[in-house]
Amino acid sequence: MLNFDFYSPTRVLFGMGRHREIGALAAQRAKKVLLHYGGGSVKRSGVYGEIASSLEENGVQFAELGGVVPNPRLSLVRKGVELCLSEGVDLILAVGGGSVIDSAKAIAMGACHKEDVWDFFEGKLKDLSALPLAVVLTIPAAGSESSPVTVISNEEKKLKEGYRSDALRPFVSIVNPELFFTLPEDQIANGVADMMSHVFERYFTDTAKTDLTDGLCEAALRTIIKNAPVLMDDRRDYDAWAEIAFSATLAHNGLLGMGRKEDWASHRIEHQLSAVYDIAHGAGLAVIAPFWMKYVYGDNVGMFAQFAMNVMGAAPSRDIEGLALEGIGRLRRFFSSLGLPSTLRDLGIGSGDFEFMAKNATGAARGSEKPLGGLKKLLWQDVVEIYRLAQ
Amino acid sequence: MLNFDFYSPTRVLFGMGRHREIGALAAQRAKKVLLHYGGGSVKRSGVYGEIASSLEENGVQFAELGGVVPNPRLSLVRKGVELCLSEGVDLILAVGGGSVIDSAKAIAMGACHKEDVWDFFEGKLKDLSALPLAVVLTIPAAGSESSPVTVISNEEKKLKEGYRSDALRPFVSIVNPELFFTLPEDQIANGVADMMSHVFERYFTDTAKTDLTDGLCEAALRTIIKNAPVLMDDRRDYDAWAEIAFSATLAHNGLLGMGRKEDWASHRIEHQLSAVYDIAHGAGLAVIAPFWMKYVYGDNVGMFAQFAMNVMGAAPSRDIEGLALEGIGRLRRFFSSLGLPSTLRDLGIGSGDFEFMAKNATGAARGSEKPLGGLKKLLWQDVVEIYRLAQ
Repeated sequence: MLNFDFYSPTRVLFGMGRHREIGALAAQRAKKVLLHYGGGSVKRSGVYGEIASSLEENGVQFAELGGVVPNPRLSLVRKGVELCLSEGVDLILAVGGGSVIDSAKAIAMGACHKEDVWDFFEGKLKDLSALPLAVVLTIPAAGSESSPVTVISNEEKKLKEGYRSDALRPFVSIVNPELFFTLPEDQIANGVADMMSHVFERYFTDTAKTDLTDGLCEAALRTIIKNAPVLMDDRRDYDAWAEIAFSATLAHNGLLGMGRKEDWASHRIEHQLSAVYDIAHGAGLAVIAPFWMKYVYGDNVGMFAQFAMNVMGAAPSRDIEGLALEGIGRLRRFFSSLGLPSTLRDLGIGSGDFEFMAKNATGAARGSEKPLGGLKKLLWQDVVEIYRLAQ
Repeated sequence: MLNFDFYSPTRVLFGMGRHREIGALAAQRAKKVLLHYGGGSVKRSGVYGEIASSLEENGVQFAELGGVVPNPRLSLVRKGVELCLSEGVDLILAVGGGSVIDSAKAIAMGACHKEDVWDFFEGKLKDLSALPLAVVLTIPAAGSESSPVTVISNEEKKLKEGYRSDALRPFVSIVNPELFFTLPEDQIANGVADMMSHVFERYFTDTAKTDLTDGLCEAALRTIIKNAPVLMDDRRDYDAWAEIAFSATLAHNGLLGMGRKEDWASHRIEHQLSAVYDIAHGAGLAVIAPFWMKYVYGDNVGMFAQFAMNVMGAAPSRDIEGLALEGIGRLRRFFSSLGLPSTLRDLGIGSGDFEFMAKNATGAARGSEKPLGGLKKLLWQDVVEIYRLAQ
């Protein structure tokens, strides 16, 4: 086990009806909030109205900014920053999923600095101040509700970049599974692939002696695999949503990676697909993660065999390599059973941008290549190879 | 799954050499700390000296108060409160295990109030203020390093009572497995029983649909069961200590009980033994927990069968009741293999105080009986029966 710091101060309020507590919570920290959301679904579902009432009842004023899209855009972030300054906002309230939360985090940083907010993502700025953030989750998947990370797409530069700071951890996140009942099937499936990938990036490691976190990762993965098909049959199954949503939060609050070398190559490889083709992050991961596994499993075949047995239900065998491949095969079939894409072709992506994306992923495009990954170090040529396998 | 709030803001610094970071951390919050510890072992081991140097190097003054004993005493807490006031202490630094941390928590509360600190434990006072707390852990077991709970023994009244407040969560806890290398075998075994019981109190529930936390509890228990025998062979095995210590912290930071009705009857029943006979808490739990299980398993036999298979390694069977009993039997043999007591006789405890203790445990002695437990509600007569079974 490696040395680690565990810090996850976000207060998670979980359960039925709890989004109506947001007004009282916001009132402890703010006079005026920016209510940040995506499309019209929060208005149609009535969640927007309930949150607005809760804020009003608690004497909290709000400005609002909707329009966040998947792979949230820098242009809207900049608009949000201006709005915070002109309206005197002192708290950002994200009502949505990972994209809305990530957009809110970027606004929270931008509103405390004169410099352009993209400077953070380019590594030119590093500072700990940000407006406080609260979250009412409406799509469980990204785990951004208790993570210190934001990922933003710069549409002009065709880049998708992340930034990490403890100041970006929401002080409170409300997770009410009832709010997920109306999510469409493809969004549920994409979310499942995303949350599972958050575990994979921590689980597949070459760090030795990681009994506890191995077990925690496996418990989260088994819980997701058990409950996702229940939702495919009945999108209004509260308990299945509760298991999935709690797993998604845990998958990304940091705990599952403590003491382990993490990987994150699959995410970096997928981010390029989303940036160039604007596909759903989870759908991209469902394709990339298994092919990344096929490309790297030889670097720790025992870990992949353990995955096959402890997560994917493969029977024990002395054929460790066979087990490892069986686990990956079972994972691909599980993703397919949820209606997720299996190949880049399924996503309508051809081979034309492989080199461009691979060089952006590793930084080779900027002349400063940094190999991706923890378990196996990947240069841009390796990334091209993974894209090719995934065709 | 039940509604829940998860909040665990303690920053855990885990790993080799990390106790030397305490001075820099304390300096962020305090000019003068109360260095609180137990016997002379922290001085003999050199930890005291390293911490004192770290404080001095960072310009932090300190007063000190040693002498905490297992089942920490109210009298020393009162002395600590006086010392804080006379010395102008603004942070309590606990260097020790659960007893030292619990004592430090009580001092941190007492130092912020004019009233006698025992008033908190008797339910007469309820307030959120306390001095900030930092911890350097030297015995991993109690989980107090990230819990909001303190348990103190009132020697005059022969009572052992707990108090819970988020203000009692340390802002930072340092867990360095190297500091545990010199612990004697019986203390290791007691600690294992204690941390496992913290999981049991959360795991054995009648709440339905708890896939994720079932899995997390089972992962923690399996990790402890795998690594404890390693320590019995070699007390200096860093990795085994790391697994055990991380499990102990996780067992008591709240996560494993989220969304579940918790129990805590075994703890309440054991606290009486410690209060009257001054035995080690973990040794008492090693006796009480399995007999509590035997007394209550019929109320959720499926959960105990699951425990037998997923934790204790029993083979699946259609005989659910047989499985449940096999799991309990395997647990007793595991505790015995660590040299832990199996019966009250092993602890030198006769039957003379069963009724006195049972009535104190449920509150019947004070004329306000409140049944113990979550899975099965226990009146004082039930508690006497469990003591009898454990003879």
